[in-house]
Amino acid sequence: MRMYDIITKKKMGESLTKEEIYGFVEGYTKGEIPDYQVSALLMAICFQGMNDEETAFLTNAIEASGDCIDLAEFGKLTVDKHSTGGVGDKTTLIVAPLAASLGCKVAKMSGRGLGHTGGTVDKLESFPGYKTSLTKEEFISCVREHGICVIGQSGNLAPADKKLYALRDVTATVNSLPLICSSIMGKKLASGANSIVLDVKCGSGSFMKTPKDATELAERMVKIGSMCKKNVAALITDMDRPLGYEIGNILEVKEAIAVLMGEGPEDLVEICLSLASLMAHLSLDIPLPEARSRAEEALRSGLAYEKFKEWLKAQGADISYAENTSLFPVAKYKYDIVSETDGYISAMDAEKIGLCAVCLGAGRMTKTDSIDLSAGITLKKKTGDFVRKGETVMTLYSNDEAKFSTAEAELSGALSYSKTPAHERKLIYKTITKEDI
Amino acid sequence: MRMYDIITKKKMGESLTKEEIYGFVEGYTKGEIPDYQVSALLMAICFQGMNDEETAFLTNAIEASGDCIDLAEFGKLTVDKHSTGGVGDKTTLIVAPLAASLGCKVAKMSGRGLGHTGGTVDKLESFPGYKTSLTKEEFISCVREHGICVIGQSGNLAPADKKLYALRDVTATVNSLPLICSSIMGKKLASGANSIVLDVKCGSGSFMKTPKDATELAERMVKIGSMCKKNVAALITDMDRPLGYEIGNILEVKEAIAVLMGEGPEDLVEICLSLASLMAHLSLDIPLPEARSRAEEALRSGLAYEKFKEWLKAQGADISYAENTSLFPVAKYKYDIVSETDGYISAMDAEKIGLCAVCLGAGRMTKTDSIDLSAGITLKKKTGDFVRKGETVMTLYSNDEAKFSTAEAELSGALSYSKTPAHERKLIYKTITKEDI
Repeated sequence: MRMYDIITKKKMGESLTKEEIYGFVEGYTKGEIPDYQVSALLMAICFQGMNDEETAFLTNAIEASGDCIDLAEFGKLTVDKHSTGGVGDKTTLIVAPLAASLGCKVAKMSGRGLGHTGGTVDKLESFPGYKTSLTKEEFISCVREHGICVIGQSGNLAPADKKLYALRDVTATVNSLPLICSSIMGKKLASGANSIVLDVKCGSGSFMKTPKDATELAERMVKIGSMCKKNVAALITDMDRPLGYEIGNILEVKEAIAVLMGEGPEDLVEICLSLASLMAHLSLDIPLPEARSRAEEALRSGLAYEKFKEWLKAQGADISYAENTSLFPVAKYKYDIVSETDGYISAMDAEKIGLCAVCLGAGRMTKTDSIDLSAGITLKKKTGDFVRKGETVMTLYSNDEAKFSTAEAELSGALSYSKTPAHERKLIYKTITKEDI
Repeated sequence: MRMYDIITKKKMGESLTKEEIYGFVEGYTKGEIPDYQVSALLMAICFQGMNDEETAFLTNAIEASGDCIDLAEFGKLTVDKHSTGGVGDKTTLIVAPLAASLGCKVAKMSGRGLGHTGGTVDKLESFPGYKTSLTKEEFISCVREHGICVIGQSGNLAPADKKLYALRDVTATVNSLPLICSSIMGKKLASGANSIVLDVKCGSGSFMKTPKDATELAERMVKIGSMCKKNVAALITDMDRPLGYEIGNILEVKEAIAVLMGEGPEDLVEICLSLASLMAHLSLDIPLPEARSRAEEALRSGLAYEKFKEWLKAQGADISYAENTSLFPVAKYKYDIVSETDGYISAMDAEKIGLCAVCLGAGRMTKTDSIDLSAGITLKKKTGDFVRKGETVMTLYSNDEAKFSTAEAELSGALSYSKTPAHERKLIYKTITKEDI
């Protein structure tokens, strides 16, 4: 098996065998195959694609490239949730304890934010004392005791994906369905959960711009998950506007706590209930409507909120912040963005808003950037709302006043206005389970 | 201009601008752009192609990446010849002095052999004393005095091509019309000749397997040449069998000398006359039929042979070898390949025969392999000939007897037989001049 022949085969549109796919993934992870051959293969895959079988082999090869978490002791109760990334997406903070409060075992490894989308691990670090890094034994023991544990991705989880993604990122080969699918699913498989709920975002703030593209990715991942013996389902959700009203780590944490306390904005609540019910449906093997009513009850009764505090405490956090969010630091400076016109907001470019938050210090453009946890944006208006000229549409927060001007520049064209209310977009386009494909 | 954006643009099927093409070629040559980004771009080019304008920019960027030879003092008289590479192709040894004897200025840089095809520089080194490396001044002065000079490619001629070709070679991106075309033409442009005659081979022993593919490449190169202000024409010639009867450096040199002395096999003579007449037609601006009869006369009269010796002497060679070819060393061992059947030879796989010669020591598979100048193959029969079982079809020569078994193995399936004579293939398919496209 020579890498040259593998590239040629894919270039000619042929399918690669299991041995060829494992061979290149292992060889690349070990540093035996150079970047320049792998990038040529990745580009050929962008053009020629990969069938389901090849994609499943690639997924398994990525999974097998490093450590795998063994959650077998929890049987079918383990469930993971993955979002393809959005702006204002704080759902994990709500959904993880909500699902755990229903009896699911939520053993989750989360990422940090990069680019215009945030990361759960950064948000969790808003709580003083929260440990995002635990040993394998501590992780499992936390799940055993509390039904929930959320940590950062371990150093040696799916190292093939780390190398492949870093290469795709600089060679314009990110945009390929089998590559996206195997990257996400390879990591999820290595994380060990039996069931996986995918939140596939679509719209201006996400990688998949249309419901059609998002559906294609979701269906592919559900199918590959099944082929890899996992119980996978997906929601296609809207990311044509930010989720909720808060963007930025501490701001989002506060909004998540509001939801757990029975408040919070409707769109965020609805997506969290849908995700948590799907997680309970898959892992507890109960009908979806029953899972939904249990989830609603857990939010209403405070059961989920109690589980949230139990979880934070178990991972070392000072939970007084979860009980009194006014303890969180507030950014030193704020800056209002006002409407220059009268009209209905007809569209919000979530990506631009996300990049504005990054400029304020809430996120990072490169992996080594540091984060200002209290920086961010509070939306005062969202798509469909009527605004008057001069009215505040959003407030920017930062500890560095100098950042407001570049941050504001990112917002150029981020909001569109119309004379009449825009046609309302769906919040959840579709639920895809393995029975659907 | 970011390399990432250039890759994305080409991946999406857009045309690259002059600035983008020069930018990536310069950046790569200087080592500022990494291999892995360039290989991704090359693969995208394999799929999306390049239009004539882009190909001309790439050709010019490759030309401009290093030294360019200034042959302006010779006006329109300078002419170069390039073969896309074949087995038994010793035409330069004949055509260069033949054209020079007609008054053309042949200032030529030739390559070494690699893989199954031989290289002129290796063949010239069969003559003791022949200098393949001269200073720019010596090179020009030799052309000025003798009308001919043939040296190895200078270290800094089209360095972008060297880097790009080495990368294409290991990333399965050799096979792309604009990349092949710009690689050949970029080097030829840097070599400075005003007119260029291309010998585009087609068939089993060449890169282009069909006349259609070869024609496409030839037309593209003639067009790009015109766009780059050069006078370019091409012959499409057969390489479905080796050219002539001798393969291997000294064996080929002897056959070339036979042609210059008015003997030699018909196919080789015909291709040399066609190439030389086209060279004279372009550079001396005389009608093709007149060029042809002058070339025939120069061969017949010995004028070309005299020019051959003058040239060799000018470049330091001991010309007694050119006068008495029995002085050349002969390989210590020979080995006859006999026919296992009665019948007409219906096809010869020139690539397999070329690789057999490499195994015997006549060529190199990697750039650092050394060459056995007297190793090679003498064909006793060629396509169309009738052979009896047990009759010798070719003789292998080597100074290492151990090489015969692996060399013979390369010949497996190289000859096909039929009961009736095969339909004769054309030797020259087509002549393409800029007026034709």
